[in-house]
Amino acid sequence: MRRVFLTLNAGSSSLKFAVFDSDNSSTTPLTKGTIAGIGGTPVFSARDTAGGALDAGAMTALDVASDHETVIALLLPWLANHFGGLPLLAVGHRVVHGGQHYRDPTLISPSVLQYLEALVPLAPLHQPHNIAAIRAVAKWRPDIPQIACFDTGFHRSQNHLAQLFALPRDLTDEGVIRYGFHGLSYDYIASILPNHLGDRASGRVIVAHLGNGSSMCAMKDRKSVATTMGFTALDGLMMGRRCGALDPGVVLYLMQAKGMAAPDIETLLYKHSGLLGVSGMTNDMQVLQDSDNPHAQEAIALFCYRAASSLAGLLPAIGGLDALVFTAGIGENSAPIRKAICDHLGWLGITLDDAANDRNATRISAAHSQVGVFALPTNEETVVADACRGLLTRAGKPE
Amino acid sequence: MRRVFLTLNAGSSSLKFAVFDSDNSSTTPLTKGTIAGIGGTPVFSARDTAGGALDAGAMTALDVASDHETVIALLLPWLANHFGGLPLLAVGHRVVHGGQHYRDPTLISPSVLQYLEALVPLAPLHQPHNIAAIRAVAKWRPDIPQIACFDTGFHRSQNHLAQLFALPRDLTDEGVIRYGFHGLSYDYIASILPNHLGDRASGRVIVAHLGNGSSMCAMKDRKSVATTMGFTALDGLMMGRRCGALDPGVVLYLMQAKGMAAPDIETLLYKHSGLLGVSGMTNDMQVLQDSDNPHAQEAIALFCYRAASSLAGLLPAIGGLDALVFTAGIGENSAPIRKAICDHLGWLGITLDDAANDRNATRISAAHSQVGVFALPTNEETVVADACRGLLTRAGKPE
Repeated sequence: MRRVFLTLNAGSSSLKFAVFDSDNSSTTPLTKGTIAGIGGTPVFSARDTAGGALDAGAMTALDVASDHETVIALLLPWLANHFGGLPLLAVGHRVVHGGQHYRDPTLISPSVLQYLEALVPLAPLHQPHNIAAIRAVAKWRPDIPQIACFDTGFHRSQNHLAQLFALPRDLTDEGVIRYGFHGLSYDYIASILPNHLGDRASGRVIVAHLGNGSSMCAMKDRKSVATTMGFTALDGLMMGRRCGALDPGVVLYLMQAKGMAAPDIETLLYKHSGLLGVSGMTNDMQVLQDSDNPHAQEAIALFCYRAASSLAGLLPAIGGLDALVFTAGIGENSAPIRKAICDHLGWLGITLDDAANDRNATRISAAHSQVGVFALPTNEETVVADACRGLLTRAGKPE
Repeated sequence: MRRVFLTLNAGSSSLKFAVFDSDNSSTTPLTKGTIAGIGGTPVFSARDTAGGALDAGAMTALDVASDHETVIALLLPWLANHFGGLPLLAVGHRVVHGGQHYRDPTLISPSVLQYLEALVPLAPLHQPHNIAAIRAVAKWRPDIPQIACFDTGFHRSQNHLAQLFALPRDLTDEGVIRYGFHGLSYDYIASILPNHLGDRASGRVIVAHLGNGSSMCAMKDRKSVATTMGFTALDGLMMGRRCGALDPGVVLYLMQAKGMAAPDIETLLYKHSGLLGVSGMTNDMQVLQDSDNPHAQEAIALFCYRAASSLAGLLPAIGGLDALVFTAGIGENSAPIRKAICDHLGWLGITLDDAANDRNATRISAAHSQVGVFALPTNEETVVADACRGLLTRAGKPE
């Protein structure tokens, strides 16, 4: 009987899952799916290895009242139906916040879960969903080991200064520091850097994770030295709907001069800003690129200008640049955005091979470019799957 | 009879003044003084050209109830006593905010004053004091022309992108943009750049105004292209008491998780953060440098690390760097701080001449440094005085 493990990535209104064969080190899952629209009209979709759509079966019972717990309570029997009783050995979770304590993937115990719950105020929009998924699995199958992989973990290698705000020490001590996020993506890219950069993989590298959420990570020896996201996932680059770096005086102005309450400010900065706010149209980069509306073009120009400035701001931490890697939705697929960002960075010795860039090649810098530029697909799920395999190996279960 | 003009710089608890001979283009004022501690225990001091202390006379009447208006109502007769009836031709003011409209020094009319008052919500801690000073002079001598010189003005040469936040357009349209500050200081430094840099003055220059308030300005052709302060004077570099750039999510956390009200957050970020907050000791850089307390050293290290990162973040806007100019209290006087910042920037081709740096020479970079580095004293008062002279020349009054 094929034994499997499951990876879960619980977002605010979605749950992504993948099932892996635990007796096989393939990075391709046996099945992979998404439940989108949780809290509204949930839509279930799943595909097998060959890309064939799988029958939704009992998952059609999802409705407007479904929360993450309901979704998981339906998903696990659905998986059991498709995998001969689901001989499930482990479940791995992407968890947004591991605080100052957790860096590496961690087996979830009651005390770990308690610590993760205490972090909810640091990531109120994400952490509760991650915890709900963990609890739902534990309720259904308390015997199954679960492991948490933290988006903040990869950055804990940073030195103290890179993590500090210029705030009073008591706030720093209570955990108001620059955690950084997208750690699973950076971890994955770091793991494949040697395949593409050879010896330069250990040099001064900036990875630009540009998607609907965007950040950059400056690495040396494939470890995080500095990153653009801070205490929350709101800071740094301009994003699809998020403002990115913003004068804190603007938040005071919204409170004092405009009388806005905290939830309204949160909605404004997390949901109505970024590409959507500046364009007044959409957060979808592709739609903006296809538009000749000057506001759409302004939003794109600001995104690229700020990306270049943020990239440059990371350089003192690693002392210059050997390679730049674009990844995630926009980074992997949008040649004009990569081009526009690199056009701001010619002074740094970056020259693109425009043809290679246009065809989304792996290496997109010109042969004579002082800095190597790459576009590499990221794969956060693989990092969680690897953590599950590591857990099972240590537990001696797969053999 | 010697005709004079007066410059005023009204801070939150201080008023600086200088009297200039309007028939003489000397940048040295006839007298210069400060009233500090307004709203507490006011302390008056004034010196003549030779540096001799002037008798306080009626200014000893200042007490705890004195506001800017009272101070000016006493100051003007005091000046009249010292300057033979004070044949005053004009008064020039440093004004923190000129909004999107005012760039150059502007003769104050009722409609100008109305516009400046409408900007109070954009600079609530500074603009009201500037306006109070203008009103106090007008009350005493409505016949005297007054001119406003704006700290935001120098940055209005920036292109649109450098002034934009990634916020919804309606906020941008109502004036929530990156104004930038310290404009009088940058204007002065820009005016003297050719004396020190020759042809390179028109190149890519970053001026680091490092004082109790700190910011940087990237210039090309001696015009502002980008700056670190944003909508308010809170953004950008770490300062004496101000936090500088801060994840806006931290402000949301202070509101939502800690239940702090706006005035408390304002006090925290403007008065208890920065060097003071991180060191837990003082906002005085010299005291921190003389201390062996590890928290003092950490505060200094963070100040320098962030200054280097902010400087690098400005580079894409001007496409690299030809020269770096340090100015203001810390920038002019603190060799170890300049050294520590430049140590983070070696990759950029910056090499200091340590001996020249230690003796606060004008040019402090090594002969082979790709980037010229300078320490130049700033003089904001001169910019206001020049604006007064320009006004008087246009009015045909000096002859």
